[in-house]
Amino acid sequence: MPYVSAPSEIARDHARKRLAALAVPPGALGRLGDLGVWVASCQGHVPPKPVDDVRLVIFAGDHGVAAHGVSAFPPEITGAMVRTFLTGRAGVSALAKEHGVAVRVLDIGVDDDFGDLDDAVRRALTTWKVRRSSGAIHLEDALAPEQARAAMEAGAKVAREEIGAGAQLLISGDMGIGNTTPAAAMIAAGLGLPASEVAGRGTGIDDDALAHKMTVIQAALDRTGTRQDDPIETLTALGSADLAATTGFVLAAAQDGTPVVLDGMMSVACALTAERIEPGAAAWYAAGHRSTEPAQSLALAKMAVEPLLDLGLRLGEGSGAVAAVPLVRSATALLHDVALLAEL
Amino acid sequence: MPYVSAPSEIARDHARKRLAALAVPPGALGRLGDLGVWVASCQGHVPPKPVDDVRLVIFAGDHGVAAHGVSAFPPEITGAMVRTFLTGRAGVSALAKEHGVAVRVLDIGVDDDFGDLDDAVRRALTTWKVRRSSGAIHLEDALAPEQARAAMEAGAKVAREEIGAGAQLLISGDMGIGNTTPAAAMIAAGLGLPASEVAGRGTGIDDDALAHKMTVIQAALDRTGTRQDDPIETLTALGSADLAATTGFVLAAAQDGTPVVLDGMMSVACALTAERIEPGAAAWYAAGHRSTEPAQSLALAKMAVEPLLDLGLRLGEGSGAVAAVPLVRSATALLHDVALLAEL
Repeated sequence: MPYVSAPSEIARDHARKRLAALAVPPGALGRLGDLGVWVASCQGHVPPKPVDDVRLVIFAGDHGVAAHGVSAFPPEITGAMVRTFLTGRAGVSALAKEHGVAVRVLDIGVDDDFGDLDDAVRRALTTWKVRRSSGAIHLEDALAPEQARAAMEAGAKVAREEIGAGAQLLISGDMGIGNTTPAAAMIAAGLGLPASEVAGRGTGIDDDALAHKMTVIQAALDRTGTRQDDPIETLTALGSADLAATTGFVLAAAQDGTPVVLDGMMSVACALTAERIEPGAAAWYAAGHRSTEPAQSLALAKMAVEPLLDLGLRLGEGSGAVAAVPLVRSATALLHDVALLAEL
Repeated sequence: MPYVSAPSEIARDHARKRLAALAVPPGALGRLGDLGVWVASCQGHVPPKPVDDVRLVIFAGDHGVAAHGVSAFPPEITGAMVRTFLTGRAGVSALAKEHGVAVRVLDIGVDDDFGDLDDAVRRALTTWKVRRSSGAIHLEDALAPEQARAAMEAGAKVAREEIGAGAQLLISGDMGIGNTTPAAAMIAAGLGLPASEVAGRGTGIDDDALAHKMTVIQAALDRTGTRQDDPIETLTALGSADLAATTGFVLAAAQDGTPVVLDGMMSVACALTAERIEPGAAAWYAAGHRSTEPAQSLALAKMAVEPLLDLGLRLGEGSGAVAAVPLVRSATALLHDVALLAEL
């Protein structure tokens, strides 16, 4: 496996000097100044180049736990939402169109064969089905070891394809009813926390369902014990096909030196797992927004990544990251276009 | 003076129903959902129309207090920054270009005759000089009463010109060394607070200068006494030409029914003053960001307007509002483009 290098320290130092030399009061650009420096260090280029080519890959998969009362929605919604992405009518479709972000949908484990799709629509769906749905993690492993490997490799291959085609910035989105349960378990495993600290309301469950979700997560943690010490074992036992693929995707981006804007719970759970697999990966990640899931904030804090937006979004799909793309472009434009004090 | 009507309640209710009917989990769009509903209610149109035509007017003026140790920068910087706006090399220029926001610069009270400008550059500067600089507010009134009226009317006229030319959303920006001192005094007057609660560090003054700035603001408040009960008297005594013009600008926008995204301290001080002049004006205002000035947050809370971004920006110029324009467009796109559950 290739190792992760650090963003360019030379470019970072040079970008910091440029930031300090701009015709603005010291520190006046706040976090947009820091964000521009990060982009420059990832690109190895000062001033940073415009971030025009941004690509979102939505990882779709079902989850065995969805049949066990952890979600406000039935599992069939996963396939229905994949169809909505393909017709460009989902929430993240609207945001991506508005901000010029390309969208690719990957079926890595949806429990649906999409046999009803027209050929034209079907061609827009990347199918790389590792299995249909994943094991119910409180009862059994999510994946067989070879399935976890195949899913990670699929995610990595998609990342490399998008980078090869010109992506300057990658985003992972998610679709899978029940997916905050395995994502919470992955974060619990990564941070050594009990279920009570990582369980959230997902798409909107009530108090009883939340208590039940905690029980399911804790049972999964208890079942897997010290296997959680290994991040690949964590994906195999507690993850899913889509979460393993997302981990492969964000890890490959870091290995390639392409920056990623993380979205909510799933994206961040996978980033944390990538950082466990290859320490240093997180240096390539910014966070688009603070989700309403408590574990997302805990995992971001562990990676020392501060979210850009805090708007109470809990849509998933990559939406919080896509909404933050204009801030990345703002930061880049400031460091690129503003006059130096010495030029005035 | 025309009165301010409320944004359309019918459109707001209709937009809320549309939001609830979208193919997303209830509440999943967070504050972007609320923002889209606000845009629809301001437009009187559901779904809201795309907010393509956004215009920033930068109100430039000098301040007598700037010669009295309240700023980290000398007054000459005001004119220098006006020149930087005109050549498109300032911070807000970069943001406005990135996000397709038109910029107009208004000299309403700069202590500079710009005699060195080429004709081509000069034509880009709207000159409506009410006076050169404004009175040092701890010692004398900022403006004569007829100057306050003329400045307010100039701001209103510019707003009506921009709206007539197609603006769907207006932003006021500021440039004027020392301007956080009169803006803080205006907010203190509007909220009935002492100087100690409204004074902030502006572009970056140290502890000693901050203590001195508080003394200046408190002296201005003590000098003007019950005149602060009247918002026009507040502008005359404690404001400046640029702040009076900005107040006229945001008030005219509300009177016309054109929404405004507020920026930082100056923009918000003027919005608060407009709301005092015409209660209900604030319903037409959203807040682009939370500035680092404490009084900005206090005034926003009084108007029940919650900022969208919180990135530690303290550049002024309208930058925080321009950086938030993509969020307005995100919100509009979501309410416009996302499928209804009933359509799936």
